[in-house]
Amino acid sequence: MDPHEHIQKIPEGGITSPRGFQAAGAYCGIKKDNGVNKDISLLFSEKPAAAAGTFTQNLYRAAPVELCRERLKNPIQAIIINSGNANACVGSNGYDDALEMGRQTARKLDVPEDSVLVASTGVIGERLPLDNIRSGIEKVASNLNNSQEAGDDAGRGILTTDTAIKKSAYRSTVNGVTFTVGGMAKGSGMICPNMATMLAYITTDLSMDREVLQESLQKAVCHSFNLVTVDGDTSTNDMAVVLANGASGEVLEKDTSAHEVFYLMLQKVCRDLAYQIAADGEGVNKVISLQIKGAPNYEDARTIAQAVLNSLLVKTAIHGEDANWGRILAAMGYSGVDFDPHKVDLYLGHIKVAGSGQGTGFNEEDVLPILQGKEVPITIDMNAGPEEILAWGNDLSHDYVSINADYRS
Amino acid sequence: MDPHEHIQKIPEGGITSPRGFQAAGAYCGIKKDNGVNKDISLLFSEKPAAAAGTFTQNLYRAAPVELCRERLKNPIQAIIINSGNANACVGSNGYDDALEMGRQTARKLDVPEDSVLVASTGVIGERLPLDNIRSGIEKVASNLNNSQEAGDDAGRGILTTDTAIKKSAYRSTVNGVTFTVGGMAKGSGMICPNMATMLAYITTDLSMDREVLQESLQKAVCHSFNLVTVDGDTSTNDMAVVLANGASGEVLEKDTSAHEVFYLMLQKVCRDLAYQIAADGEGVNKVISLQIKGAPNYEDARTIAQAVLNSLLVKTAIHGEDANWGRILAAMGYSGVDFDPHKVDLYLGHIKVAGSGQGTGFNEEDVLPILQGKEVPITIDMNAGPEEILAWGNDLSHDYVSINADYRS
Repeated sequence: MDPHEHIQKIPEGGITSPRGFQAAGAYCGIKKDNGVNKDISLLFSEKPAAAAGTFTQNLYRAAPVELCRERLKNPIQAIIINSGNANACVGSNGYDDALEMGRQTARKLDVPEDSVLVASTGVIGERLPLDNIRSGIEKVASNLNNSQEAGDDAGRGILTTDTAIKKSAYRSTVNGVTFTVGGMAKGSGMICPNMATMLAYITTDLSMDREVLQESLQKAVCHSFNLVTVDGDTSTNDMAVVLANGASGEVLEKDTSAHEVFYLMLQKVCRDLAYQIAADGEGVNKVISLQIKGAPNYEDARTIAQAVLNSLLVKTAIHGEDANWGRILAAMGYSGVDFDPHKVDLYLGHIKVAGSGQGTGFNEEDVLPILQGKEVPITIDMNAGPEEILAWGNDLSHDYVSINADYRS
Repeated sequence: MDPHEHIQKIPEGGITSPRGFQAAGAYCGIKKDNGVNKDISLLFSEKPAAAAGTFTQNLYRAAPVELCRERLKNPIQAIIINSGNANACVGSNGYDDALEMGRQTARKLDVPEDSVLVASTGVIGERLPLDNIRSGIEKVASNLNNSQEAGDDAGRGILTTDTAIKKSAYRSTVNGVTFTVGGMAKGSGMICPNMATMLAYITTDLSMDREVLQESLQKAVCHSFNLVTVDGDTSTNDMAVVLANGASGEVLEKDTSAHEVFYLMLQKVCRDLAYQIAADGEGVNKVISLQIKGAPNYEDARTIAQAVLNSLLVKTAIHGEDANWGRILAAMGYSGVDFDPHKVDLYLGHIKVAGSGQGTGFNEEDVLPILQGKEVPITIDMNAGPEEILAWGNDLSHDYVSINADYRS
């Protein structure tokens, strides 16, 4: 069978699309009150769920990240997340405050304390305002439900400088059993391809071994979040977590067709969220979709994608709709990957602009409509191997500077 | 003796300050004619000089870089440099055109062809306009002289998006012999600490072995140009070259006090030029002077400096005069260097803002005047070893985006 045939996108779907998951989002005074802001979110699984996660590799890891890593092996029933304050770089208080945030949530939901995951995102170095958090937990715990709107509210409560919520969901039926994968994420600044590097929460109503879930997530993250770059900075708080609660009644066995379909659904959700993150980078006007073909291996392809998509000169050229292909080759050249520069073919859209280390003499007017689009497709064919990846970045605009120059104000 | 005592800065000095060097700069139509632009420069040594150089490590190396690497071992009499066109990524034409540019210069100056070095900087991927180059060589060859103004003209002819010429010179007398080191550079975009990464030309009227000259240059570059970052991009054309023509009559022997003084002078010239490059980065409002103390070794210190100074979030925070010290720690944390985050002390100016992985609760008002300065001093004490470096970067402003969005237009 073609596993793709069985997979259907759920319009407007998200974390509450799979059965047995409830959500809520509320405002509790951590962020500025502008009438729209929410700053606390709760995700609740009606049954204890298997959990898997990937986390930031920054040496400065926020306290909630440490707590999640410890609790991931437990059956998980809830994830409580605040935005506006990262609870990072605050010394030992950070861990105590994360514990307290989890404890309050557990008490309110009447679930074991060690079944609650805790996450924070926002300003680094300021103590978590626990009074606000407590009142926020009251609100979200009493508003929990499984509607699409509840999922959207939770999606809003985890945002920082993002301009829109990020969500995706897919459904499939294999051997007569219908199951669903849904997700939400926040992105914006500090996104770069070194795992995590943002918050993402994924739900499924399948049941499966923790090891199978962890393996599937890691692979999906490699081909989605780890291939997004907004500004090259990896934050202290990033994580992607998936919960599998078994509410569909289906127990997924490894290496079955259902497993294959599940992995594809998980990858699709992660890629949708990754694309939405790139498109909603701070001050972004254009998404760059960079395909690397003919690479010797995944690592080399990813390193080159990272160099090109992090290059300020490439980002500003795309912003200016300038076919300055030399900057793309230059970024490849200093990436640290060893390759033969004369074998590389470079395309903007379908038009070959460089090959054999020089320009093709293409007509600039043919390329202009490609550069004027909201999504600029670039293809690098290294002609050096079988590996192929798709990565996403974006242009660098004046607004990026404005947003980040006074983030704390 | 204290070698520093013997060293005097020459106000307004540059490449023509040492004896036996002449220079010129002219306009030959490669760049736009705005009445001020120059786009070709010539440096001439009256006697054949020993030469040393360090070059870009980008896999895409421009043709003139290849030519210089080949000729460096020869006695050198001239360096011809154009701006506005990088003669990079143009296939085998590039090498032929660089050869021709050197040949014309040699003919005009009546010196051996292989005693001429050639350099180019500017747009990548367009063929060098040889007719303009030829007429430019006529002009600069007939205007050569050893005045300060001639040095300034040459300094202007190598600029691209720089707003000011960059120059420095020091003089010293050791054992009754007076000798001088002078230099000029261009910087702006594409500056990052991985050697070369800009054009720099240094002259001295000492005489010495090529090996001693090469060793001294490499060490000086490690502690100057390799510690500057503007945008993290390493270009195809970067080089630092030093010529020693012996016009002072002094032959420098290795490991003597004169050698020590010479090295310090060379380092001072390189550091002055590096600082001027950081201060004149594209759209720069502020220079960040980053001191890393207590590092285990040079490489770790440099890697951390690079991560911090390349971080868009740090650069925009400094632009916004925002004491967001968490971003500095976060950049250290993802730099790839393995260190104990709890040992690190972080200072803005003389005020300790973080230690033991958390904020010190400093008074924001005390820090504001430091952030409002044109030069923002940051000190990271890793408390983990004896190494100390000083690195330079700058803020990221709206103008950076404007300058780079349509560089080719």
